[in-house]
Amino acid sequence: MFIHSQKRNPQTGIRDWNMFWDFLSRRPESTHQVMFLFSDRGIPDGHRHMHGYSSHTFSLIGPNRKLTWVKFVWKTDGGIKNLDPEKATHIAGVDPDYARRDLYDAIEEGKKDGSYPSWTFYIQTMTPEQATEQKFNPLDITTVWPHSQFPLQPVGKLVLNRNPSNYFSDIEQLAVNPSNIVPGIGHSPDRLLQGRLFAYRDTQLYRIGTNYEQVPVNRPMNRVANFERDGNCVIQNQGSAPNYHPNSFGGPDAQRTVKDKTLPPEEVTGFVDYYDLGNEDNFTQPCLFWNKVLDAGAKTRLVNNLVATMKLISDESVRQRAIDMFAKVDSEMGRRISTQLRVHKTIKL
Amino acid sequence: MFIHSQKRNPQTGIRDWNMFWDFLSRRPESTHQVMFLFSDRGIPDGHRHMHGYSSHTFSLIGPNRKLTWVKFVWKTDGGIKNLDPEKATHIAGVDPDYARRDLYDAIEEGKKDGSYPSWTFYIQTMTPEQATEQKFNPLDITTVWPHSQFPLQPVGKLVLNRNPSNYFSDIEQLAVNPSNIVPGIGHSPDRLLQGRLFAYRDTQLYRIGTNYEQVPVNRPMNRVANFERDGNCVIQNQGSAPNYHPNSFGGPDAQRTVKDKTLPPEEVTGFVDYYDLGNEDNFTQPCLFWNKVLDAGAKTRLVNNLVATMKLISDESVRQRAIDMFAKVDSEMGRRISTQLRVHKTIKL
Amino acid sequence: MFIHSQKRNPQTGIRDWNMFWDFLSRRPESTHQVMFLFSDRGIPDGHRHMHGYSSHTFSLIGPNRKLTWVKFVWKTDGGIKNLDPEKATHIAGVDPDYARRDLYDAIEEGKKDGSYPSWTFYIQTMTPEQATEQKFNPLDITTVWPHSQFPLQPVGKLVLNRNPSNYFSDIEQLAVNPSNIVPGIGHSPDRLLQGRLFAYRDTQLYRIGTNYEQVPVNRPMNRVANFERDGNCVIQNQGSAPNYHPNSFGGPDAQRTVKDKTLPPEEVTGFVDYYDLGNEDNFTQPCLFWNKVLDAGAKTRLVNNLVATMKLISDESVRQRAIDMFAKVDSEMGRRISTQLRVHKTIKL
Amino acid sequence: MFIHSQKRNPQTGIRDWNMFWDFLSRRPESTHQVMFLFSDRGIPDGHRHMHGYSSHTFSLIGPNRKLTWVKFVWKTDGGIKNLDPEKATHIAGVDPDYARRDLYDAIEEGKKDGSYPSWTFYIQTMTPEQATEQKFNPLDITTVWPHSQFPLQPVGKLVLNRNPSNYFSDIEQLAVNPSNIVPGIGHSPDRLLQGRLFAYRDTQLYRIGTNYEQVPVNRPMNRVANFERDGNCVIQNQGSAPNYHPNSFGGPDAQRTVKDKTLPPEEVTGFVDYYDLGNEDNFTQPCLFWNKVLDAGAKTRLVNNLVATMKLISDESVRQRAIDMFAKVDSEMGRRISTQLRVHKTIKL
Repeated sequence: MFIHSQKRNPQTGIRDWNMFWDFLSRRPESTHQVMFLFSDRGIPDGHRHMHGYSSHTFSLIGPNRKLTWVKFVWKTDGGIKNLDPEKATHIAGVDPDYARRDLYDAIEEGKKDGSYPSWTFYIQTMTPEQATEQKFNPLDITTVWPHSQFPLQPVGKLVLNRNPSNYFSDIEQLAVNPSNIVPGIGHSPDRLLQGRLFAYRDTQLYRIGTNYEQVPVNRPMNRVANFERDGNCVIQNQGSAPNYHPNSFGGPDAQRTVKDKTLPPEEVTGFVDYYDLGNEDNFTQPCLFWNKVLDAGAKTRLVNNLVATMKLISDESVRQRAIDMFAKVDSEMGRRISTQLRVHKTIKL
Repeated sequence: MFIHSQKRNPQTGIRDWNMFWDFLSRRPESTHQVMFLFSDRGIPDGHRHMHGYSSHTFSLIGPNRKLTWVKFVWKTDGGIKNLDPEKATHIAGVDPDYARRDLYDAIEEGKKDGSYPSWTFYIQTMTPEQATEQKFNPLDITTVWPHSQFPLQPVGKLVLNRNPSNYFSDIEQLAVNPSNIVPGIGHSPDRLLQGRLFAYRDTQLYRIGTNYEQVPVNRPMNRVANFERDGNCVIQNQGSAPNYHPNSFGGPDAQRTVKDKTLPPEEVTGFVDYYDLGNEDNFTQPCLFWNKVLDAGAKTRLVNNLVATMKLISDESVRQRAIDMFAKVDSEMGRRISTQLRVHKTIKL
Repeated sequence: MFIHSQKRNPQTGIRDWNMFWDFLSRRPESTHQVMFLFSDRGIPDGHRHMHGYSSHTFSLIGPNRKLTWVKFVWKTDGGIKNLDPEKATHIAGVDPDYARRDLYDAIEEGKKDGSYPSWTFYIQTMTPEQATEQKFNPLDITTVWPHSQFPLQPVGKLVLNRNPSNYFSDIEQLAVNPSNIVPGIGHSPDRLLQGRLFAYRDTQLYRIGTNYEQVPVNRPMNRVANFERDGNCVIQNQGSAPNYHPNSFGGPDAQRTVKDKTLPPEEVTGFVDYYDLGNEDNFTQPCLFWNKVLDAGAKTRLVNNLVATMKLISDESVRQRAIDMFAKVDSEMGRRISTQLRVHKTIKL
Repeated sequence: MFIHSQKRNPQTGIRDWNMFWDFLSRRPESTHQVMFLFSDRGIPDGHRHMHGYSSHTFSLIGPNRKLTWVKFVWKTDGGIKNLDPEKATHIAGVDPDYARRDLYDAIEEGKKDGSYPSWTFYIQTMTPEQATEQKFNPLDITTVWPHSQFPLQPVGKLVLNRNPSNYFSDIEQLAVNPSNIVPGIGHSPDRLLQGRLFAYRDTQLYRIGTNYEQVPVNRPMNRVANFERDGNCVIQNQGSAPNYHPNSFGGPDAQRTVKDKTLPPEEVTGFVDYYDLGNEDNFTQPCLFWNKVLDAGAKTRLVNNLVATMKLISDESVRQRAIDMFAKVDSEMGRRISTQLRVHKTIKL
C-alpha cells in the first residue's frame, strides 16, 4: 500500500526507493512522521476511521491581538480502524474506490437515522510563555505536544451530512490552502508552514485556474471585497469597486483587514540570514513513540513494513544511512531492521 | 485611423503595408469589403451611428425543416454619422475612449427620458429556389443582396438600456461565436462561415478559458444539458447526469437536439475535393458600389484614403497588383489611384 | 483489472457499472471490441507482449492521388502473453509499475545483446473496388478485415532501442493524434475517425498547452512552415515569414500542401443529413469470434470475466439489455451469461 | 499622451481621472515620480533618447558576503530628446509604431557604420555606513541619490546591435522580473521591491505560461540545474536529476546556491508588525526638483501638463487633495495649479 504513495524516478517514471530513502535519511527531522506512516496507522480502513490534524501549529488571536498557539485535532467518532498491508494491497487491486464508496455510503446511510460520519473537534493550546519553556520546538511540524501537559479541549463536532452533487466540481476542484484562514486564527513562524502559504496557492492557480477562489466550492458565502480582478473565467468581478489602496470610492481597505486580526507584534533580535537548522533534536519524540506507544506486536509490524521497502534500496550508502537513522531512534530498532535486511540481497523489483 | 486596425510584421511588430496589400490584392474577393472600409463609412462616429450586419448568410428553419436563407440587418435609429480621417486621427491621439464613452453616456442619458441607443432589426429572406436564380452567389460573404429584390423586413428593435456592471466580466469576457445559435436558426455552407464555426470557439477557449461558456455573460438563462464537463474552473457541472449518448439516466439526448431543428437534408452530387474557387465574379458588385452608390465627393475621399496607405507600399509588384485590382472595378478608379501614386515616390514611414 | 479502466459516476466519483453497461448495451456496434476486452487478450502481460493496430482504416495515396485503403498492424516479436485476472488484480495492488518497468528493463537489456523489444510492421490493403464488394463496412472501426482475404504484408520493424531521458517530457507530453500524418497517408470517411481528428487535437491543446506541437518530443526534425504562430510559450515562431495565404514573401503555401497529397476526389450523390446508422450488422463478426476463434476454455473465461462486472449492475433493465446484446452474438453465450447472473442477486460493491 | 498610460474605471472600461488622482493624492510618496512623468521627460522621443534606471536600490555582494548598496543607471549616448504633448498626441493618432520603428531602423542603420543605439552603464554605490547617515531613506524607490555625493561611476556600454528575429517570441515573451539576478547582485529590503519579487513572477506565469523561463529568450545559455520540473510545455526537464534537496544523485544543491552569494547577515532588533509608514519625508526631494532642476519654462510646462488632466477630475475632494499635495512640494506650485483649475469648471470629457 505504501507503494502507491511513492515518489517516481524522473527518468523512468517508476517508483524509486533509492530516492525515497535518500531524501528521508538526509532529512532526519522526518523520522517521527515516517514511523507513523509505516505503523498500523499508516493504512486507515477508509476515511471514517482516521483522525485529522492541523499538523502545523497555528495561533488564536484574541482581543488586543493576544496570541495563543494552537493545534487543531479531529478525533473520529467512528473509532480507529486500520487495514493490514496484505488486505490493503488486495483492495488496491480489486476495488480502488473502497474508501471513497465507504464514506459515500455512510453519509447516505446517515440520512435515514442520523448516524452520519462525525469527528469531535478539539484544540490544544499553549501560551507564548509556555512555548519558551519547552525542550522541544512547539512550532515545528515534526513534534507533537504531549497530551498530559496540553490536554485536548473539546470544541465541537465535524459532521459530514451531505454528499457532493458533482464529484469534479465539489471534490476535485476543492482548493485546500493553509493561507485560507478566518479572522481570529493566525499562522506561526515555522518555515515549512511559511513555504506552504505560498506553495499551496501556486498549486491551485496552476491546477484549477487563476480564479479558482471564485469556483462555488471555494468561494465564501459572503460578498467578497478584495484586490483580485480579471483573469480567465472571472465570475464575480466586484462591479465598479476600485482595486487600489487606499481609495475613496468604496474599494477594499487593506489596513483595516490586517490591523486588528493578525499576529501581534513580535519582538525579534538577531541576524537575518540563511540557517541550516541541522542540529535539532530529531529523535527524542520518535524514541518515545517506539518505547512508550508501540506494543510488541506493533513494533514487529512497523519493522516489517519498513523492511518491505528498504530491501528495495539498491544504493548501499542510502540503505546504510536509513538504517543508521532508525538506530538513532532506538538501538534495538536499528538492529532489528539491519538484521532483517541482511538476509535480503538487494532485490531488483 | 485605418492605421490602427492594421496587420503587423511578424519580425518587427510594426504595421506592414506590404503585407496588408499583398494579402488583399491576392484575394480579389475582398475588394468589395475593402472599398467599404476605406469609404466614409469606414470610420463611424461612435458605436451609435453605424449599422450592424450578420455579414454571412444564415438560414431560418421552419416546421418540417423548411429552409429559407436569411441575412440579419440592424439599422441604427440614431442615423449614420462618420468621422473624416483627420478628425479620427486626432481623436485617436487625444481621446482613445471616445466611442466607448459616447455609448456609455448615451445609455445613462436614456435612463432619464427613455432615449436609449437603438437599432431596428430587419431580415432579408431568399428561398432556395430564388438562390439558384441569382447571378451572384448569395451564400458568399463578399456579396450583398440587392434591397430592391430582397427588401428589408422589419422584425423588432435592439435597445441598449443597461450598461455593464463590470467591463471585464461583461465585455472583455463576451465570447462572440457564430456557432452559438438558437433553435430555428441555422448556418449556411459558405466556406468562410464553416471555418469560423470552429475558429471562434477555438479562440474563446484560448482567450477566456475552457469553461468560457459558463461565465455569466456567456451562459444561457435556462439550465444547461449538454456533454461538456470538468476542466479548469467549472461552475455548473450538471450533477449526476451522464455525459454519454445514448443513455438511460437523464443525460442529454443528442439526437433529439439535432433532428428537428437543423438544416434540412441537402441533395448533393459531384466530387468531394479541394477547390480553388478562383474564378468567381469579384468585381460586379464593387463596380455598382463605385458607380451607383458613391457620389463625386465620396469617390474622391475613397481614392484619397486608399492612396494614403498604398503610397506606403515599398514592394513594387504588390503596389501594381493592388492598383490592377481597383482598375478591374472601374478603369477610372484604377487610373485615379495610379496617377496619385505616381507623384509619390515610395515613402518609408 | 477491468475495474481500473472503468468509467466513474459524475456525482460520486466511483466506478459505475450501470453507466458502463448502459452505454455499451445501447451501442451494440461496440460488442466486438468489448468481447476482445474481456477475453484473455484484455490483460496483456506488459507492453512487450501485445500487438498494435491502427484500428481505424487509413488510406495510402500514390501518384496521381490513387487511393488504397489500409490497416496498419504491429505484431509483437516477443509473442502474445496475457495475465489471468487474479494475477493482474494482485499486481495492480503490489506493483503498479509492473508493465512500465518490464519495458524499461527490456530496452536496457537490449543494449547488451541487441535483443530490443520489437514488432513486425504489416499492412493490409484493399482497393476501393474491393471495398464496395464486402458485406461488412471496411471503413468502420468495429469490423476486422479477414486475413484470408486481405493478408498481412510485411513492411518493416518497429524496434524500441532507447529509453526516454525524462519521463514527463518524453512520455507524458507525447501528443498522440490521428490527424498527424505524413504525405502519402490519408484518412478515411469513418465518422468516429472524423470526430477524433478534432477531438485528439483539442485534448492536447488543453492537456499540454497551445504550442504542444513545438515540444521536442512532438515536433518534426525538419524546419516547420505552417500558419501557427504565437500563443503561450512559443519556441519557434518562424521569424518574419507571413502567416497569411496566399503570400508573396516566403510564407507557407496552403494549396501546394493539400493538392497532390490528399485523398483523391470522391464522387458523392445523395442527401447531406443527420443519420442514425442504427441498422448496421453488428453481430456477424462477434459471432465468428465466439464460434471460430475462442476454444472452450477461452469461452468460459470470457463469460466469467463478463459476469464478474455484469453482476455489479443494479439497474435491471440495463442488465437485461446487456444480456440481450450477447444473446444476439450467440444464443449459447447469452444463455450462459444469463444463467450465471441469475445465481447472483444484484451485488452492491 | 499621458492619457494613454492611464488607469481604467473597472465598470466602464474608460480612463478614469478621479481614480488616477485619488490613488496618487493618497500616496504622497508618489509625488516625485508623478512630477517627472508630467515634466518634459515624461514623453521621450523614442526609446533611443531616454535614460534607464534600476529605480530600486539593489546590492553588490563581494567576497565574504560584503554588501554595498547600488543603483544602476544607463545614460543614453544618443542624448535626451522629448516630444511636446501636442506632437506626441498627433503621433499617437497617425503613427502608433513611431518609437518602435525608430529603434528598429536605428539598429539596422548601425549595421552599416557601427552607429548602433547605445547607453553608457553607470553605477552609484553607497556603503551601509553611509546609508545610515542619510536624511532620506536610500532604499526607498521614491528617492534619488544626489550625484554630488554618490557620483556616477562608468562600468560599460549597453549596445543594441541586433533586431529580434521574431517580435512575439523575442519581445512579447520577454519576461522581465527583478528576482532574476546573477551571483554577485542582491536585492534590498524595500517593501515595494520585495512585493515585486513575487508579483513579476506571478504575472509571467499567468501571461506566458508555467515554463516561461524555458522559452529561448528567457532561458540562460548555461545548462540549468534547479528544482523546477514538469508543467505545460516543458522543454528541458533535466533528465534523471532528482528534484529534492538534499540528494545523493546529482540533483541541484540548494544550500550551495544561497550560502555564499546572497545578502550578508543583517542584524535586526525591534518588533515584527504591520507598519503604515505614513510619515516619511515625501516632499524634500520633489521640492528640490521644482526649485533647482526645472527652469521657468519647464515649470510652466509641468503645471500645464498637470492641469490638463486635473481639470478632468469631477470629484471635488479628490481634486483638492491633489492640489494640496503639490502645494506641499512648493506653495507657488500649488497656487499656480489651483489658479489655473479655478478657471475650469469640472469638465466632463
